[in-house]
Amino acid sequence: MSNYTQIDQTCANVIRTLTLDAVQAAKSGHPGMPLGMADVALVLYKKFIRFNPLDYRWFNRDRFIVSAGHGSMLPYSLLYLTGQPEMTLDELKRFRQYGSKTPGHPENHITQGIEVTTGPLGAGTANSVGMALAERWLAAKFNRSGFDVVDHYTYSIVSDGDLEEGVSHEAASLAGHLGLGKLIWFYDDNNITIDGPTSLSYSDVVPMRFEAYGWHVQTIDGHNMDEIEAAIHAARAVTDQPSIICCKTIIGKGMPTRQGTQKAHSDEPGEAEVHGAKVTYGLDPEKTFYVPDDILAAWRAIGAQGVNYEAAWDAAMTNYVTAFPTEAAALQDAINGTLPDGWDEVLPTFKPGDKPMATRAASGNVIDALVTSVPSLLGGSADLTPSNNTLPKGAASFAKGDFSGRYIRFGIREHAMGGILNGMALHGGVIPYGGTFFCFSDYMRPTLRLAALSGAHSIFVFTHDSIGLGEDGPTHQPVEQLAAVRAIPHLTTFRPADANETAFGWKVAVESKGPVALVLSRQALPILPKNDGALKGAYIAQDAENPDLILVASGSEVSLALDAARALGEQGKRARVVSMPSWELFDAQSDEYRASILPIDMPKVVVEAGVAQGWHKYTGPIVRFVTQETFGASAPYKDVFKHTGFTVEHVVSEALAVLS
Amino acid sequence: MSNYTQIDQTCANVIRTLTLDAVQAAKSGHPGMPLGMADVALVLYKKFIRFNPLDYRWFNRDRFIVSAGHGSMLPYSLLYLTGQPEMTLDELKRFRQYGSKTPGHPENHITQGIEVTTGPLGAGTANSVGMALAERWLAAKFNRSGFDVVDHYTYSIVSDGDLEEGVSHEAASLAGHLGLGKLIWFYDDNNITIDGPTSLSYSDVVPMRFEAYGWHVQTIDGHNMDEIEAAIHAARAVTDQPSIICCKTIIGKGMPTRQGTQKAHSDEPGEAEVHGAKVTYGLDPEKTFYVPDDILAAWRAIGAQGVNYEAAWDAAMTNYVTAFPTEAAALQDAINGTLPDGWDEVLPTFKPGDKPMATRAASGNVIDALVTSVPSLLGGSADLTPSNNTLPKGAASFAKGDFSGRYIRFGIREHAMGGILNGMALHGGVIPYGGTFFCFSDYMRPTLRLAALSGAHSIFVFTHDSIGLGEDGPTHQPVEQLAAVRAIPHLTTFRPADANETAFGWKVAVESKGPVALVLSRQALPILPKNDGALKGAYIAQDAENPDLILVASGSEVSLALDAARALGEQGKRARVVSMPSWELFDAQSDEYRASILPIDMPKVVVEAGVAQGWHKYTGPIVRFVTQETFGASAPYKDVFKHTGFTVEHVVSEALAVLS
Repeated sequence: MSNYTQIDQTCANVIRTLTLDAVQAAKSGHPGMPLGMADVALVLYKKFIRFNPLDYRWFNRDRFIVSAGHGSMLPYSLLYLTGQPEMTLDELKRFRQYGSKTPGHPENHITQGIEVTTGPLGAGTANSVGMALAERWLAAKFNRSGFDVVDHYTYSIVSDGDLEEGVSHEAASLAGHLGLGKLIWFYDDNNITIDGPTSLSYSDVVPMRFEAYGWHVQTIDGHNMDEIEAAIHAARAVTDQPSIICCKTIIGKGMPTRQGTQKAHSDEPGEAEVHGAKVTYGLDPEKTFYVPDDILAAWRAIGAQGVNYEAAWDAAMTNYVTAFPTEAAALQDAINGTLPDGWDEVLPTFKPGDKPMATRAASGNVIDALVTSVPSLLGGSADLTPSNNTLPKGAASFAKGDFSGRYIRFGIREHAMGGILNGMALHGGVIPYGGTFFCFSDYMRPTLRLAALSGAHSIFVFTHDSIGLGEDGPTHQPVEQLAAVRAIPHLTTFRPADANETAFGWKVAVESKGPVALVLSRQALPILPKNDGALKGAYIAQDAENPDLILVASGSEVSLALDAARALGEQGKRARVVSMPSWELFDAQSDEYRASILPIDMPKVVVEAGVAQGWHKYTGPIVRFVTQETFGASAPYKDVFKHTGFTVEHVVSEALAVLS
Repeated sequence: MSNYTQIDQTCANVIRTLTLDAVQAAKSGHPGMPLGMADVALVLYKKFIRFNPLDYRWFNRDRFIVSAGHGSMLPYSLLYLTGQPEMTLDELKRFRQYGSKTPGHPENHITQGIEVTTGPLGAGTANSVGMALAERWLAAKFNRSGFDVVDHYTYSIVSDGDLEEGVSHEAASLAGHLGLGKLIWFYDDNNITIDGPTSLSYSDVVPMRFEAYGWHVQTIDGHNMDEIEAAIHAARAVTDQPSIICCKTIIGKGMPTRQGTQKAHSDEPGEAEVHGAKVTYGLDPEKTFYVPDDILAAWRAIGAQGVNYEAAWDAAMTNYVTAFPTEAAALQDAINGTLPDGWDEVLPTFKPGDKPMATRAASGNVIDALVTSVPSLLGGSADLTPSNNTLPKGAASFAKGDFSGRYIRFGIREHAMGGILNGMALHGGVIPYGGTFFCFSDYMRPTLRLAALSGAHSIFVFTHDSIGLGEDGPTHQPVEQLAAVRAIPHLTTFRPADANETAFGWKVAVESKGPVALVLSRQALPILPKNDGALKGAYIAQDAENPDLILVASGSEVSLALDAARALGEQGKRARVVSMPSWELFDAQSDEYRASILPIDMPKVVVEAGVAQGWHKYTGPIVRFVTQETFGASAPYKDVFKHTGFTVEHVVSEALAVLS
């Protein structure tokens, strides 16, 4: 005897018809996954997921992440059916049209009730780990006996594509290691990818793979609602392991000729398929975007429970406020993203007389200070802790069995680290950071982009930022990474010139609404006399009366520029030195300010240990470059700098050349 | 009774002492892995690996890839000990010094006998799969009964770091699927990473994970030479599965206090550790860079076998030439990288009257033609075959059981695809290509860089190259990718404006010595009247007498620029249109040519559906930009173009503005 009725089946089937109608109307989209996973979605939403359509931001909601983001009509249908006010039937009809709430792939910054931006395969797997991680950390920090005020599940639908992507390995391996028991993945195991049957390219025994990661593993018929329910119960019962439920499904289930084939994956199915599918589902084939009244009522009843869930939580919070007023206030601040008053007063300052210091070391000092004043700050490194200086003094590791640790050992998993940071940031309640070598920003580049696109407040700590890395050689020496990172829209890049600029960079990073990349030196740099303009992105680090030219530099090359300015002075040339830690911040200044710092017609020499690409925008036509246009070399860093022309002599000679 | 003597143990130990001396001298480097894997290396080199130190390019050599590239002193020691003429003791003493043959990480373009450039973790795993794949394809193509002229193993050392990286999942999953039986990995399972014990972040059951991929799996004591030998025999006996031999080792074995800890991984160990280790090894602690004569003789005897291996192969080849002269000539051409005379005569041409065609479709036509004239060309797609147009008409898939197929189903594994292409390219005998959406070039970015750094002739086919992708929306629409790819030194990027330019792009790609990225449109583009300058990177697609301004464009925006020029003409403004498919090719032209195409002081409008970053270099100061500075939107592509300003009206208005 099934616990599920024909009503339930039809509730699942309307996800399918809404999907088919939307894809057919758009003549574009991906019906395969929603048709395959509709039954899982029905059971999950009817019996398990706690959320409130009328308050999609309710903090303790369960998170639901569609990593297989191409199946966006699944979450859009669910939002509509459960009564998310913004997600009207009209929006479903405008699927994939300009300005709609229903873009091709789910985007949290466009659509209320979408948790993260997915679509690039694998991304959601790491995001879901980040959300589950943030939940456990906040729970460890704020929950008290009898007060589980942070206590939710993170569910995700993952596809063959997600699991083929390397980032899924990194994310799952770490989740298994950490024992994130409230993380549950549904694997849409349909044996089909775009090219055809998975047998063309994929024969992993997925359950065995996940057992190897330490996950709790089940395999079920993804169209049998009783099996689905039992599996979710079993997954939730296991509290010290994440769970994967491998759901054997038929892609595009119900389409007469396309189901079970790669043709079901994407593109408009055609009227005949849509008609035939509706007949199979027992729904009126002549109607489009049609949900029978009783079915809509059943779905809305599911959504309506959300008010009760949130009310119960509100009540618990009220008691929590009474019992633990300090913790409650802190939790509320964390949820709201409110920084404590005066949080930045702890930022260390450094004096020109102080010992030279690598900006990565300065960053370590800043982190030590910030953890005392920014309680939401939480981060780690992709196994380069001693090099990235990311470990706050005395911080314990976030670990299986004790989730209160404030330091995350991401392992050698840069890509997953990026996705986890984004998941944490979009979960809320935390400000996450993660470190690696700048060269390996390449590994996590898809996540830098998604952070920027989705407005995730992730802080990326990139150390060893140039050929100044030295002996490890060109495989580890960033050359093009600065240009590449600066090219990403909505990402703020900050490359400080000394310890004080590093503190400013962290101030920017903590206060930012979106992602920030801090680009830090391996080698020690002198403390500069003057840093007051760093927050404006560029400023005059040292001026000259009626300057003949400007030396523009960032990061470790600012002190070289200052030395060169001195040498030029001895030759009677007056050089202004501009430190420019951040293009994006400078671009945001007034025309007047920008013209006052970098007047367009004044001769310039750009000094930066990276490719020149993009600098011309700031220089005007009279310019020379002391930049790094090819790969570096393995040698002590001073030798590398010497051989590649980062010397006072070379800067001076270029300056004289630009003046002549 | 062991088959191995004290001499053998000392042969292994001199790898250790050379490593320690080199790292100590450089005060920098990574002793941990070479000390841990020296015993494996001894057995592998003494009993199995076929190579010829006197001819490091011998085509049928076994390939040996140190994916854990930080352990570079292992291969450097082996090269010296086995008698690679270039690798002198002096070079070992110059470890990590400017201009030495012993850079921090192994670099094939610097050091003879190094197969690939490794160091960025995980990279070598995919490279090794590429090498094994190339070997099997060439074997299927050229071997005849009794003539196994292509027949070698690919061995690789992989570390915890390699296996934590996502790319190792992608590469191993595909290798298992394809059943690459001549691929053998040694997993240096030492339980240590930079941060500390692997228990901080890593608890995969690696053998189970690899069983799930379909690999042959063994676990042994990595310091027991008999076990090592038996395991390699067993691995070679399995012909339809790749093998992983999990070697339990002690990192930094022999260092008195550092062995078995993360302190053994990197940095100078200090004199006391070096001294103590030498005592433990039974070697003179007072001597540095010392190899006892009998031990060097034993090693040199191992290397000397190489001449015999190669001679035997030469003899077999001589017989093969007699029996199969056509195949032998073709194989020799493949090995030499010789393109058949007139190979490019098959390139299709298209007429302005022809139907508009997406450049990805044109690329498909070109591939269809090239496979008839370039026998070494071999490629695939990361599961976007119907979108990337990468499948040559009628080509079979390279598959387990039949390695003759010319099409590679990479699966949804962009990062591994890049690494596999590089491995294939550096193996030689093949010209590999691989396709994905341009947006997902981000996933494989580390491999684009390594291709460029190591001079791998990989061809990257990137389709859906802008917001012109349309409905899939911003997660799939490249915006910053053109700038990011152009930023990589030594990579040629080519974004053709129409079908004919696409053919030119492929000509560049096939003839190149290094990597080439082809950047292709999803949407149909008109066939332009004139393409003769495409090989120069930029040319005048349409001129005007005494032009008032220049419209500079690439790819799909060239036809928009032509339309805008026409509209400007109607307003009495004379616009030159420059098509600029490749910055790198243009940069290589004479000053005179460049000035003739883009005179610096002529007003310009740049029209390109990507960020403007970098264009200023070509434009001079009087310029406006019709570019894409933010993320795109999900909508039919014409709507996206309209809303983002890629219209004749907007280009015209910017042109008028730049003129005023």
